[in-house]
Amino acid sequence: MVERRAASLKQQRSIETREALLSGAARVFSDLSYSGTRLRTIANESGISEGAMYFHFGTKAELANAVLAEQQERMTEVLASMQEEEGDALEKLVLLMNRLAVLISTDRIVQGGIRLAADPNVEITADARDPYFEWIAIAQSLIEEGVRDGSIRADVVPAAAAEYANALFVGAQVLSGLEDGWVSFPSRIDRLTPFLRRELGD
Amino acid sequence: MVERRAASLKQQRSIETREALLSGAARVFSDLSYSGTRLRTIANESGISEGAMYFHFGTKAELANAVLAEQQERMTEVLASMQEEEGDALEKLVLLMNRLAVLISTDRIVQGGIRLAADPNVEITADARDPYFEWIAIAQSLIEEGVRDGSIRADVVPAAAAEYANALFVGAQVLSGLEDGWVSFPSRIDRLTPFLRRELGD
Repeated sequence: MVERRAASLKQQRSIETREALLSGAARVFSDLSYSGTRLRTIANESGISEGAMYFHFGTKAELANAVLAEQQERMTEVLASMQEEEGDALEKLVLLMNRLAVLISTDRIVQGGIRLAADPNVEITADARDPYFEWIAIAQSLIEEGVRDGSIRADVVPAAAAEYANALFVGAQVLSGLEDGWVSFPSRIDRLTPFLRRELGD
Repeated sequence: MVERRAASLKQQRSIETREALLSGAARVFSDLSYSGTRLRTIANESGISEGAMYFHFGTKAELANAVLAEQQERMTEVLASMQEEEGDALEKLVLLMNRLAVLISTDRIVQGGIRLAADPNVEITADARDPYFEWIAIAQSLIEEGVRDGSIRADVVPAAAAEYANALFVGAQVLSGLEDGWVSFPSRIDRLTPFLRRELGD
C-alpha cells in the first residue's frame, strides 16, 4: 500500500515535470525562436534540473515535437467536447469557434505549438497542417448537420460554407496573432460571428 | 554619347543583377529557411558571381530585408494601381483582393517575403506587419467610398466590414499557403467573393 502510493506519487511528479518542461519550452521557443533556444535555458525556465529534463527529453527536436503533439491534443479535445453539447448545429459551430479562440488566446503550450509549426527550422515529425484540415472536416460535418436540423439554410453548400467559416477563423487567428499575440482573438471571433450567422443561418 | 550609353548599360546590368539576386534569395530562403541558407548558395542559385553579389549585398540580413522591401513595394504597387480603376467601390474591393491573390500566387519574391516575415530568425528591420494594416486601411476607405457611391449597403459599418474582408483574405492566404504554396489562392478568393458581395452589396 505504501509502495503503491509512492509509485503513484512518483508518477504524479513525473507528469508535473513533463508539464513544466512543455510549458517552459513553449515560452522559450516563442521568445527566442527554435534555433536560438538552448536546452539549458528551457530547464532553467521550467525550474527543472537538467538531469531531470534529459530523463524526459533528450533533444531539442523531441521537446519541440512534444509541444506540437500537446497542442494538437488540446485542440482535438475542444473539437471532441462539442459532441456532448446540446443545441442546434449552427450554435455548435459558433461555440466551437469561440472555444478554440479562447484556447489559443490563453494557452501558452498551444501558442508555442502554433509558433513552432510556422518555424521552418523545426524538424517537425507530426504534420503541423493536420489540425487545420481536421477542423475543416468538423466544420463541414456540423454544417451538414445544420442543414438537416434546420438551423442552417437548405441552399447552403456545406463544402463552400466550411471553407468560408474556416477562412474567417484562420484570418482572425493570424491577424490577432500579429496584433497582440492572440489576446484579441476571441473578441475578433465575436465580431465576425454575425457575418457567419447571416450567411448560414435560416 | 557613347559614354552615356555605356553608363546606362552598366546601370541596366546592375538592376538585372540585383533582380536576379533578390529572386534567387527568395527561392533559396523559401527552400532552405533563413538560418539554413548560406550567401554562396544564393550567388550560385542566382547565376551571379560572389564578388558581384557582395557589391550589392554584404550580409544575409541585408538580402533578406531587400526581399521584404521588394515584396512590400510590389504589394503597394497593386494597392496603388486601384486608384486608376473605373467602376464602383465594391467592384474595386473585389478586384483588389483578386489582384493581390494573383500576385502572391505567382511572384516568387513576394512568396519569399511572406516566408521570411514568418521566420523568427530573420533580423527584420522593416515592420513585416505594415502591409496587413495598410491593406485594412485601404479596404476600409474603399468600403466608405462604396457606402457613398451606393455599391455598398448604407447599414454596413466600414470598420467591421473591413475587418471581415481582411479576415477572409488572410485566411484564404494562409490556407492556400499550407495547401499548395498559394497556387489555389486566386480560386479560393473567387469562391469567397460571393460571401463578400452578399454581406456588403446593395
